[in-house]
Amino acid sequence: MSNRRTINIGLCGLGTVGQGVWKHFGRLRAELEARLGARIVIRRVAVRSLSKARAVKVPRAKLTTDALALATDPGIDIVCELMGGTEAARAVTLRALRLGKVVVSANKALICAHGAEIFAAARRHGGHFLFEASVAGGIPLIKAIREGLVANRFARIYGILNGTCNYILTQMEDLDAPYASVLEEAKRLGYAEAQESLDVEGWDTAHKASILAWLAHGVWVRPEQMIVEGIERITPADFKNAASLGYGIKLLGIITRDFETDEISVRVHPTLLPEGSVLARVSGVFNAISVSGDVVGTTVYIGRGAGQDATASAVISDITDAVALLLHGKGAHFMGEELPPASRGARMAPPERIRGRYYVRLTVADRPGVLARVATIMARNRMSIASVIQNPSERPGSASLVLTTHESDERSVRAALRSLCALGSVREEPLLLRIGDLED
Amino acid sequence: MSNRRTINIGLCGLGTVGQGVWKHFGRLRAELEARLGARIVIRRVAVRSLSKARAVKVPRAKLTTDALALATDPGIDIVCELMGGTEAARAVTLRALRLGKVVVSANKALICAHGAEIFAAARRHGGHFLFEASVAGGIPLIKAIREGLVANRFARIYGILNGTCNYILTQMEDLDAPYASVLEEAKRLGYAEAQESLDVEGWDTAHKASILAWLAHGVWVRPEQMIVEGIERITPADFKNAASLGYGIKLLGIITRDFETDEISVRVHPTLLPEGSVLARVSGVFNAISVSGDVVGTTVYIGRGAGQDATASAVISDITDAVALLLHGKGAHFMGEELPPASRGARMAPPERIRGRYYVRLTVADRPGVLARVATIMARNRMSIASVIQNPSERPGSASLVLTTHESDERSVRAALRSLCALGSVREEPLLLRIGDLED
Repeated sequence: MSNRRTINIGLCGLGTVGQGVWKHFGRLRAELEARLGARIVIRRVAVRSLSKARAVKVPRAKLTTDALALATDPGIDIVCELMGGTEAARAVTLRALRLGKVVVSANKALICAHGAEIFAAARRHGGHFLFEASVAGGIPLIKAIREGLVANRFARIYGILNGTCNYILTQMEDLDAPYASVLEEAKRLGYAEAQESLDVEGWDTAHKASILAWLAHGVWVRPEQMIVEGIERITPADFKNAASLGYGIKLLGIITRDFETDEISVRVHPTLLPEGSVLARVSGVFNAISVSGDVVGTTVYIGRGAGQDATASAVISDITDAVALLLHGKGAHFMGEELPPASRGARMAPPERIRGRYYVRLTVADRPGVLARVATIMARNRMSIASVIQNPSERPGSASLVLTTHESDERSVRAALRSLCALGSVREEPLLLRIGDLED
Repeated sequence: MSNRRTINIGLCGLGTVGQGVWKHFGRLRAELEARLGARIVIRRVAVRSLSKARAVKVPRAKLTTDALALATDPGIDIVCELMGGTEAARAVTLRALRLGKVVVSANKALICAHGAEIFAAARRHGGHFLFEASVAGGIPLIKAIREGLVANRFARIYGILNGTCNYILTQMEDLDAPYASVLEEAKRLGYAEAQESLDVEGWDTAHKASILAWLAHGVWVRPEQMIVEGIERITPADFKNAASLGYGIKLLGIITRDFETDEISVRVHPTLLPEGSVLARVSGVFNAISVSGDVVGTTVYIGRGAGQDATASAVISDITDAVALLLHGKGAHFMGEELPPASRGARMAPPERIRGRYYVRLTVADRPGVLARVATIMARNRMSIASVIQNPSERPGSASLVLTTHESDERSVRAALRSLCALGSVREEPLLLRIGDLED
């Protein structure tokens, strides 16, 4: 077997995911080599610090601090970019693609910010860019959408794309505990980053929604063009109110396309989901994505969305596809990248036109006439109230007023919220949640 | 574009699935051709009757009654075998593979009966056999297991693999209706075949479990080697008993592997699933499969398992992979078929050694001492009783006695059932259900 071809991998980044790839690849290498019929070698590993102690033992001779040199090394066929960040990662990725290499990436922020440039570089220079690990970690979702469901157009894709937020929301609901204490505990357990804002403000979910929108519709949507709202202002009382209405609360990324107008919308916000729905039952750090195709109907995918092992599983799947590509030719996997799904004139729907039902929580002065004033403002904005829940507030002299509405649109609800904010009897910024009418 | 290569497809079978493929392929053809860079033509269609009226209009010149001629036609590159049955389908499949063609199949019974021969023929003669539509219809499950989760070994794969049974069970539970009347209604609505036995006795699920066992472990397990039990003897009372214990009832195919002993077990039986579990919530004609990998953890896939459109979606995905293969080379998709997952000494565990907890429903004479006799028999067989529910039976003078047990094994429970049957006070064959301790 000494005349077998050797495929060489360069690993950029030896953090949590990089160490996972090193560990599992080492364990699986003999089997993968047997199945693929080639030697597969992690030839070099780029790290920020040569001296840092790590759980995995990488021979010192393989280590370098120069990731860019690794991208340009003619002896390396596949570059695994697991550094994170967008500056150095972009440089490494583009350099490798321009040399016709295969790049495997778990970097959703990079793809979201520079996807158009990256895929153009791959096409122009014969490189390939694989990114299964970038969305929904261990779930082979990108393969499902791009290959398994190739016969479908996607009217709706939505899901729980951030395990940290889902863990926090699940704990708040199960323990009746406030956001701040659950977040603190999540940090202690390693389920939330020290800098949590990317997760809890919805931006990580937005990055992933952007990638899914491109996969499904061939359009790059930047987070700035979306409605992006986080989970920080949700309280245990909101879970109780939602439950009394028959709902749970999940942070969702939602991508819809109206094939009559050819408008797409991409948004991220906490959403009330019917308690009986499958996604409402998905708890803890799991991700879950519902994909509705016009031929296949609705399919749902559930699994761990992050973490060392789940992400390594996806990266190794991409490495395997990359080795098969280098040995045997392109196959079906690469159809999507050559001719990304035609956008066929799809354009972003103006966010203010998105329609839906709403949940509005107000903290109001507990005195006569307030409900009448609130109801008048809703009516003036053509918002039809579906239900009202009034409870004592934690604030002395205040009441919590929860309204749900019949279908309306973002423009109307925002105008209503602005008017409500201006009322002297409204004592806090209103909390707006959307009601997800997403089931089939 | 006139010098583009043309890929020719032969469609064998124009029943429900064949018509779905014709319809959707026609609609998608221009887009698929643009993305794949080739002309793709359904060149001939083999049918049993040339004169039969069909919902789709296939030009008469394309029709033939000779499926085998279509398999040997040198002008045809891809043979879609959608005839069903195992005799003619086997002949067509083997003939096409031996000529190095690609065969796309939705025929789980064929694969289960002749998979070893089919894959051997493909390997020997350079043909390829794709079968995404054979298990879980529209869900790209085979691609997920074979490619997306390539880094994993699978300790457990289980799921709802037959939509007809799941529809019947869901209706029985929701409407508190007996099996026979729900089955009749399901036939009227087209959710069950006129000849329902393949579905309700568990054999269709067993075919699919056999394919999944091969994908995951490289071993062909025939239904005769499995425990296969159906849903015909379940009553509305069983749903109530299960609910009172916190369970729903689903017909599951279950494939497990113990990596210490390297024994696998494959079985099909109605199973009590905890009400809060995701699979317990999957209702109607949907399929749902839980796949536990040693790296990725548990992933779950849900979607329509059968029907014209969902199956056509999977067949067209395979056709796309086949076209890409013929144009661009093998790619990763075909890794699995060249070197099927090494069985590494895996062997079937003797079914009688399978361990689990049990639900036993007895119809007994309603007189003193019966419970004592039943309990004595259970104890003699080292079955430890966990709970007892006694209710009046529909039979006059009888009582329904439901026992659940702590963990035991198939040998013990079968021996206990034999002894119970021999008791004069036991008036019907006992109903045995398994309790699924399948969650992570």
